[in-house]
Amino acid sequence: MHIAIVGCGQLARMLALAGIPMGLKFSFVKDKPDSDTSPINGLGNIVPWSPDTPVAQLYEALGRPDVVTIEKEQLDAGLLKALQPFCSVFPNADAVAQCQHRHTQKQLLSRLDIAAAPFVYGQSLRVSVDRLGLPVVVKSCREGYDGKNQWTLKSEADVAQLEQHFAQLGDEQDYIVEQWIPFERELSLVSARSAEGEVTHYCLTENHHVNGMLRESIAPAPKLDANLQAQAQQSMQRLFDELDYVGVLAMECFVVDSTLLVNELAPRVHNSGHWTQQGSATCQFENHLRAITGTVLGNTASIGVTGMINLVGTAKPSLKSLDYGVSLHWYDKAVKPGRKLGHLLYNHPDLANVQEYLRQYAQTKSP
Amino acid sequence: MHIAIVGCGQLARMLALAGIPMGLKFSFVKDKPDSDTSPINGLGNIVPWSPDTPVAQLYEALGRPDVVTIEKEQLDAGLLKALQPFCSVFPNADAVAQCQHRHTQKQLLSRLDIAAAPFVYGQSLRVSVDRLGLPVVVKSCREGYDGKNQWTLKSEADVAQLEQHFAQLGDEQDYIVEQWIPFERELSLVSARSAEGEVTHYCLTENHHVNGMLRESIAPAPKLDANLQAQAQQSMQRLFDELDYVGVLAMECFVVDSTLLVNELAPRVHNSGHWTQQGSATCQFENHLRAITGTVLGNTASIGVTGMINLVGTAKPSLKSLDYGVSLHWYDKAVKPGRKLGHLLYNHPDLANVQEYLRQYAQTKSP
Repeated sequence: MHIAIVGCGQLARMLALAGIPMGLKFSFVKDKPDSDTSPINGLGNIVPWSPDTPVAQLYEALGRPDVVTIEKEQLDAGLLKALQPFCSVFPNADAVAQCQHRHTQKQLLSRLDIAAAPFVYGQSLRVSVDRLGLPVVVKSCREGYDGKNQWTLKSEADVAQLEQHFAQLGDEQDYIVEQWIPFERELSLVSARSAEGEVTHYCLTENHHVNGMLRESIAPAPKLDANLQAQAQQSMQRLFDELDYVGVLAMECFVVDSTLLVNELAPRVHNSGHWTQQGSATCQFENHLRAITGTVLGNTASIGVTGMINLVGTAKPSLKSLDYGVSLHWYDKAVKPGRKLGHLLYNHPDLANVQEYLRQYAQTKSP
Repeated sequence: MHIAIVGCGQLARMLALAGIPMGLKFSFVKDKPDSDTSPINGLGNIVPWSPDTPVAQLYEALGRPDVVTIEKEQLDAGLLKALQPFCSVFPNADAVAQCQHRHTQKQLLSRLDIAAAPFVYGQSLRVSVDRLGLPVVVKSCREGYDGKNQWTLKSEADVAQLEQHFAQLGDEQDYIVEQWIPFERELSLVSARSAEGEVTHYCLTENHHVNGMLRESIAPAPKLDANLQAQAQQSMQRLFDELDYVGVLAMECFVVDSTLLVNELAPRVHNSGHWTQQGSATCQFENHLRAITGTVLGNTASIGVTGMINLVGTAKPSLKSLDYGVSLHWYDKAVKPGRKLGHLLYNHPDLANVQEYLRQYAQTKSP
């Protein structure tokens, strides 16, 4: 079987590395001229695509894949739709389209009665702030990720500054304004649904961000309330059913008053699921591939406790510097400040041990 | 860091797949003109080598690797020796040379007081059989693997037939004759020693052969006596020290009267260690790479119980046919009768469950 992945980053790399042992073949769509393809070099044919390339030509150049899938949501959903007559596209084009724009995503959640932060869309900053009250978070509807193109406004001065920034940019900005949520912690759920409708969930993961970018995760999330896991799985099941979703879907949530507010959906394997490479019987990458190839899903039971540390903008750690119990995943990307370049996994039967490792790492090794 | 592997088969493939996430680069030495390189296609540069190629030229063509390692013992140990001035060679040439010939391997075991089956070397079949008494096992000293070039002689008629076979082959045969051991079961130990001298052991694995070829393993070996594990580890430690060994070493043993007789050493990752891909915190492939790159060795603790089933001479199973809890490792080799083409892993917390799975598989799916 042959899988084509739209995107050339580390998620495409880790999907391919999980799939090669299964005997799967890969090719990759390079849909942005400036994409760094170094993470996937050697793992399959890389086919450049721009909107003026006929899709039939792309399909042939990819080697007639059985399934097309994605490693990112910021892509041309029209491409996915156009590929659907040629082969399976998982997740489907419409599911990706609904998730890739923050407003349609909010509408989806609202339609399914899944709690999320109050928001205003399609109004001026002024009107939005007046309706929601400060503080708010302003997010670009399409281009925001890892804290980029997101602004937390706490004061009128912040509002004025962003208004000025938008005015300087000139073009009309497509943004959504959300009430800022004073959350207790952030959890995420990563789940998979197969082409046969089989569903499996990983345990909730606790995530810590720095400047809007995920810095570390710990799974299973400490002091986990079984009700939260159940609530998250119910919401996920509704999303799966509504979207006729196939593959891995990630849901980031805020915990507020012991209940979940969904912050963001990602229709793909997710950074907060990287811990599954060490801490679960089947990693998220293999389960995504199982889902889209119609293979029975793999066991998602956790093994001990796993801490995941993102390596951001830092040189590759030498193998000799790795601590006992730590595995390195390096993406082979050019080192640039603020860029996710790899991650470390640390697994141990005991939560306190993992928390202590994360604490020590942050104090002594974190750049 | 850049690792060159001598050999192009599935063990080279699985080493590379374990090392790419660590940021390691690979190249491969194709030292036999007819080697099938399909398992490693795309995973690194493949450099053909024949004994008339200067080693300096090979080293350059490989891209000046930091470390050379091997995936098989049947190779030109002189090549490894000649590479030693250029880069690290792990395991070292002399260790490989001692393991690659059955007689020097027996001498090594004897020198270290490690029990093995009685044998005769360098005598006619007649003399050997007279000394040991029937039944005996005759093994080619260099070319025997997976039951090939091995003969169990139970009767004088068997002896006469093999004498005739050798006479027909003409050239003098290099073989060793061993007393046939009525063993209770076969266990193997897979261990790693790092360039820093750190040592770690996996648990003993129980192996079942069909026609001399490994068909299935189960790990940890059922009803494991802690004394056996300790005995095996002591022997392994002596081998490591004696050989100044770096990397993974495998030791196949017979259990006779609750004690171990070493049957065979393999200076490399080993088929009976494939279960570690699913059933251990760190697989044997990663630990071999950790050992040869001076990285602290990974945790070898077992996770539940794992059954490994070799796929021999059979078409690739469809992903849809996989049972729950089973992962497929397919080597992408051309399908030929009697050839190891892939393996299945089945992991479960409960031994009886794994045994039942293996039993059912053998009854219903085994070719």
